[in-house]
Amino acid sequence: MTRRLVVIGADAAGMSAASQALRVAAHLGRDLEVIAFESTEHTSYSQCGIPYWVAGDVDGADALVARTAEQHRANGIDLRLGSAVTSIDLDAGHVVVDGGSGEQRVGFDELMIGTGAEPILPDWAREVPSVLAMKTMDDGAAWRRLLAATDGQAPESVLVVGGGFIGVEAAESFAKRGVRTTLVTRSSEPMAHSLDPQMGALVRRGLEDLGVEVVTGAEVSGIESRDGLIGAACVSGVEHRADAVALAIGVRPRVGLARAAGLPLGDHGGLVPDDRQQVADGIWAAGDCCEVWDRLLESHWYTPLGTHANKAGKVAGTNIGGGTARFAGSVGTAITRAGAAEVARTGLLPAWAGERGLDAVQVTIESTTAAGYMPEADPVTVSVVGERGSGRLLGGQIVGGRGAGKRIDVLAMALWSGLTAADVVDADLAYCPPFSPTWDPVQIACRKLDTAVRDPGR
Amino acid sequence: MTRRLVVIGADAAGMSAASQALRVAAHLGRDLEVIAFESTEHTSYSQCGIPYWVAGDVDGADALVARTAEQHRANGIDLRLGSAVTSIDLDAGHVVVDGGSGEQRVGFDELMIGTGAEPILPDWAREVPSVLAMKTMDDGAAWRRLLAATDGQAPESVLVVGGGFIGVEAAESFAKRGVRTTLVTRSSEPMAHSLDPQMGALVRRGLEDLGVEVVTGAEVSGIESRDGLIGAACVSGVEHRADAVALAIGVRPRVGLARAAGLPLGDHGGLVPDDRQQVADGIWAAGDCCEVWDRLLESHWYTPLGTHANKAGKVAGTNIGGGTARFAGSVGTAITRAGAAEVARTGLLPAWAGERGLDAVQVTIESTTAAGYMPEADPVTVSVVGERGSGRLLGGQIVGGRGAGKRIDVLAMALWSGLTAADVVDADLAYCPPFSPTWDPVQIACRKLDTAVRDPGR
Repeated sequence: MTRRLVVIGADAAGMSAASQALRVAAHLGRDLEVIAFESTEHTSYSQCGIPYWVAGDVDGADALVARTAEQHRANGIDLRLGSAVTSIDLDAGHVVVDGGSGEQRVGFDELMIGTGAEPILPDWAREVPSVLAMKTMDDGAAWRRLLAATDGQAPESVLVVGGGFIGVEAAESFAKRGVRTTLVTRSSEPMAHSLDPQMGALVRRGLEDLGVEVVTGAEVSGIESRDGLIGAACVSGVEHRADAVALAIGVRPRVGLARAAGLPLGDHGGLVPDDRQQVADGIWAAGDCCEVWDRLLESHWYTPLGTHANKAGKVAGTNIGGGTARFAGSVGTAITRAGAAEVARTGLLPAWAGERGLDAVQVTIESTTAAGYMPEADPVTVSVVGERGSGRLLGGQIVGGRGAGKRIDVLAMALWSGLTAADVVDADLAYCPPFSPTWDPVQIACRKLDTAVRDPGR
Repeated sequence: MTRRLVVIGADAAGMSAASQALRVAAHLGRDLEVIAFESTEHTSYSQCGIPYWVAGDVDGADALVARTAEQHRANGIDLRLGSAVTSIDLDAGHVVVDGGSGEQRVGFDELMIGTGAEPILPDWAREVPSVLAMKTMDDGAAWRRLLAATDGQAPESVLVVGGGFIGVEAAESFAKRGVRTTLVTRSSEPMAHSLDPQMGALVRRGLEDLGVEVVTGAEVSGIESRDGLIGAACVSGVEHRADAVALAIGVRPRVGLARAAGLPLGDHGGLVPDDRQQVADGIWAAGDCCEVWDRLLESHWYTPLGTHANKAGKVAGTNIGGGTARFAGSVGTAITRAGAAEVARTGLLPAWAGERGLDAVQVTIESTTAAGYMPEADPVTVSVVGERGSGRLLGGQIVGGRGAGKRIDVLAMALWSGLTAADVVDADLAYCPPFSPTWDPVQIACRKLDTAVRDPGR
């Protein structure tokens, strides 16, 4: 008997699940039919690449596509683009789909929800052209068109609203295009939800070195529209001239369908799958419409990242196909770039540790990405957090020059394995003058942390 | 009662021990006198930086000095340069020192041996000028003088003998100086003691792209001297013209003093300290004169690296000073550069695993250092080894463009914690298009390994 999997949303999570389900089912000799509905005309593309496409770093939209619709179809997935699912009936086991020519019911044995996230839109941003997010392929295409306009409509200045990862990446992309760029954030420094202010200040400097004006502690309350472009934005009562506005105040799980179907949502507004990625019997979910288990917070958290979408989608697919897989969770690792500054974080900020009742100790060190005497040596700042007494590592942040950012993976691996600061100091990391000081900067930080969390005389 | 620590050899291991012993003793309120004897005029410098100094990447010899003699003395260490210890009397508890003006006995309560390593010299290399190693500050200075000679004596061509880390780094340094460079190795590819031939071939290509001629499966049997410079070298029966020869066929523990004093040596010819770095009651050792505990081989191995010297020296110093510390061992991590190729390894090669009775599975993948569509994307090859059945990670090798090499630290951390390939796939590593594909290359490799070590249908 052929079972049918219906997938809603044909991006990272949905298509990872679809592909993996077919692969595992075939291996187990089970018949599985997979139909994937996608409301847009795009599938399996890199949302994270959009700012770099806008910046001109990426050749064309096609380059962002990891797998085309044709490739998915050749792999046996019945992929239907431009087909919006309008409702889910869990009891009847069908979805209603609008493919452009009227609605149609499609039954399922298993349902995979991969509806992703949607940008948060403030009231002032609605219905105004030249206020665009920077999330989807269509957003990217709109920015590319706007920036390339030859009728005098190309914006000379852009206001980026929001200082998180996407805001920083958007600001970098505009600055690299030579557009006068202002970034506005409510917080005292950029990336306040991810970094301590001292590290956020280094991000700000990275942006400022690119020519971006960073306005902190400020909020956009309204904009003045002018045919096609923006005229000015009101930023905490001060008028800022801007021809266009990039909205990057965050995203939230796109769960309208799931909510309407009666599926429960979590504290952060997302679906809350178990570690098999199941949200109800035969109903699976993964990606940005879900909350993610955080191993350090020991709770679900909203961490919309492509890495989790891919992993959790694959886990869902394995289970749907008849295999067994479990999603191991997140430790909150993330990385980006602000001009020449590589910016990375993992684990808990001291404040978060405090909220969890942990006695957290933080130390910050400055070092170099290579041996100090090498031309490759760029400054790097590493901040690490550990638990007083036990020395257990709780988190880390890195901002620095080339080669700084991916060092966060050492701390992420340490968090993954529950290591102490002393363990990281002992670890056998790679050293050679073009790549590191003799003690890697993360080890220098952990050495200082090890002293701070224990008897200071060690 | 003031106890006296005598240190033999004032480089990384010896001076890490001396500094840490004083620091810990002071913290514990113990009196400790430290006298350090160094036969050369140099202290605490980066041996690993010598090839880059010769290449012209480093401004001057002073830049390589981590801590000057004056700084050590200001910290309370009685450092005596140009003072060669000529014998150790363990029973009497003294060393005999030749400081240039006759021999002198100096008693000790604790003795720290940090005599380092010496280059292996083949018979044909003895007593011939323009055959130089590339190990010490004096070697580096000699190369700098030779390459800068203006009397027609500057070599136009250099033959590098040996294809290991130092040989590869030496070849890079000469090539960057514009000297015609030939590297000769006995093995089928460079770095045969560290990498599989398929990875060694990528190192060879990195060198060839720099203009280095790589002669494999060949051995130097003799050289023809010509006033000041070399005339030619006989390489496996073929005459190669060369003006100078860089010797890099390896180093061995410098243990003449220790052996003469009756201290036992290990299978690899080095001192074999316990995990407190003690080799006999009150006798301590660390650095390149010692073998190092390898956590994967579960035996001692000769791994002369600055990282181990610094760590083990610090451990010795803590224990000497009255504290408690243990050296946690090595997993065989190393990194270097061959032109544009970053080269790194950790853990076991498949052959070594086989010798230990492990059923090893190896997979190799090709990926990119950044998302494939980004200008930062360089090719990277990752090879990983795991144990069939358990999936335990046993080792890894990486060769690739910028950003490839330090990814080895993720595998080193996994080996450190005894993780499986599946654990690495699950781990929360940092992703953003300029820094990585969605699945980091080490995860892509581990995903393939996970399939290979287990039921292929997973």
